[in-house]
Amino acid sequence: MTYMLKRSLFGLDINKRGTPGGQVKVPEAMGLVAGIVYLVCIIVFQHFYYTPDSSWLVEYNAALASICFMLFLGFIDDVLDVPWRSTYFHETPSMGPSVGCCCGGGIRVCGVGGGDGHLFGAGWVYKLYMGLLAVFCTNSVNIFAGVNGLEAGQTVILASAVLVHNLSQLGGIPGVQHPLPDELEQAHLFSIYLMLPLIATTAGLLAFNWYPSAVFVGDTFTYFSGMALAVVGILGHFSETLLLFFLPQVINFIYSTPQLFKIVHCPRHRLPSLKSHVSDRAIEQWESYAGLE
Amino acid sequence: MTYMLKRSLFGLDINKRGTPGGQVKVPEAMGLVAGIVYLVCIIVFQHFYYTPDSSWLVEYNAALASICFMLFLGFIDDVLDVPWRSTYFHETPSMGPSVGCCCGGGIRVCGVGGGDGHLFGAGWVYKLYMGLLAVFCTNSVNIFAGVNGLEAGQTVILASAVLVHNLSQLGGIPGVQHPLPDELEQAHLFSIYLMLPLIATTAGLLAFNWYPSAVFVGDTFTYFSGMALAVVGILGHFSETLLLFFLPQVINFIYSTPQLFKIVHCPRHRLPSLKSHVSDRAIEQWESYAGLE
Repeated sequence: MTYMLKRSLFGLDINKRGTPGGQVKVPEAMGLVAGIVYLVCIIVFQHFYYTPDSSWLVEYNAALASICFMLFLGFIDDVLDVPWRSTYFHETPSMGPSVGCCCGGGIRVCGVGGGDGHLFGAGWVYKLYMGLLAVFCTNSVNIFAGVNGLEAGQTVILASAVLVHNLSQLGGIPGVQHPLPDELEQAHLFSIYLMLPLIATTAGLLAFNWYPSAVFVGDTFTYFSGMALAVVGILGHFSETLLLFFLPQVINFIYSTPQLFKIVHCPRHRLPSLKSHVSDRAIEQWESYAGLE
Repeated sequence: MTYMLKRSLFGLDINKRGTPGGQVKVPEAMGLVAGIVYLVCIIVFQHFYYTPDSSWLVEYNAALASICFMLFLGFIDDVLDVPWRSTYFHETPSMGPSVGCCCGGGIRVCGVGGGDGHLFGAGWVYKLYMGLLAVFCTNSVNIFAGVNGLEAGQTVILASAVLVHNLSQLGGIPGVQHPLPDELEQAHLFSIYLMLPLIATTAGLLAFNWYPSAVFVGDTFTYFSGMALAVVGILGHFSETLLLFFLPQVINFIYSTPQLFKIVHCPRHRLPSLKSHVSDRAIEQWESYAGLE
């Protein structure tokens, strides 16, 4: 953390009581640690579960490349303060490997198009949808942020929901027909491989990001977690279910649309106006509960 | 570049004449730009040359993930000033996807071991060699640096040498038996796919990094380029030839060994003592040639 502070990588924790000027310096971009631990986890995992036929390794490595690229871009965003509009141009290519992988397997499974594999072949509508989904997931976690613990918290909840969905599809929850087709079973297993380390690393981060935050997760984390979720949705062939899990983020996105398209003025950080809704007494109780006095 | 300077990402260009105190602030870590352009190139390329059987996509995505992870770690190194010894622990896993891919195809082709695919299976000596090769390539570009244009320059030369080697193997230079086995032909094509954008992006960077440098490339670039070269050597199955191309770096590594293992004191930047070897008049001529006057 001291590395972060030394490089002026900190955020101001505002709207807090009992701090000089209502602001504390909190190390930013600590999602970096969670992200790297996550990547190392799934790389090491790959070595232990390598199988000679290994057709799933194409998708696994595509997922790895996509998530790694996105984590990288998030960190660049945190460090260099790149104008946020230009990040869209980076996000779309970073989705490339995963979307590319879908040509072969994904499109056939979902029954959307022929998927002959060329860039402007039969499945281009599907690919466009995939690309937009990736951009949406990444940014929806990002814009649904700003309260201590919200970024990591929503990721834990979303990843757990995806994990439960995978387990229910695999494990014989009553009402699901069995056996699943081989491709779908592989897809759900694949999703579990990626979701378990995501939950573990994010839970660790959440412990530090919980109110009152000792660290901020930064764009590094929001991009990374959004991409990890988008990747399992796409390569796991349950992107529609994923969008259902993202319902709160969809609502927040729709609610934010006037600001995002600059119809209404958008400040640098949009803050919830806590005081207008909550009494002073409630805030005091909250702070004493959190050990802030 | 202004983003870099704003975040104090600059190096001091020392041992220059005619500058106050002999030092100029030069933006650091500009290998970032070359690296991202490179990644976008090979991602887009993947979409146009996607084939339905696509067994080579496993290796391609593994290479992508390895290079992306290494570029990322280089940038972290530049930004956060992580103690350099700890970077070894990151480098080894980042090589994971590529080494993993070698289990199936690489080991069989090279005839070293059985390659049954388990982590501690028959090919572990080969894997250890691959891992060490990756660490060596990455660091050898890094420690053979410190003079304007040297990092980018050696990369252009090495990548061009690899490209010529691939073309000579494919294109029927007299004395090479034809036809090559299918795996080797694919491996050399694969190497060409990765080397062409590396040469292009590095040449662009070299134009700015040429003496007198307008930018510094940073660990971002040295890690990235070393990894890209290591990856084609490993996945292209010509790691022995690659080591021949790396001969100047090998010599520099051996020469630096006493400093690297702390037998002799190692300063933060090891500078060539230009003045003791070159006359003042030669330096003046050099500067007037470079337009510094």
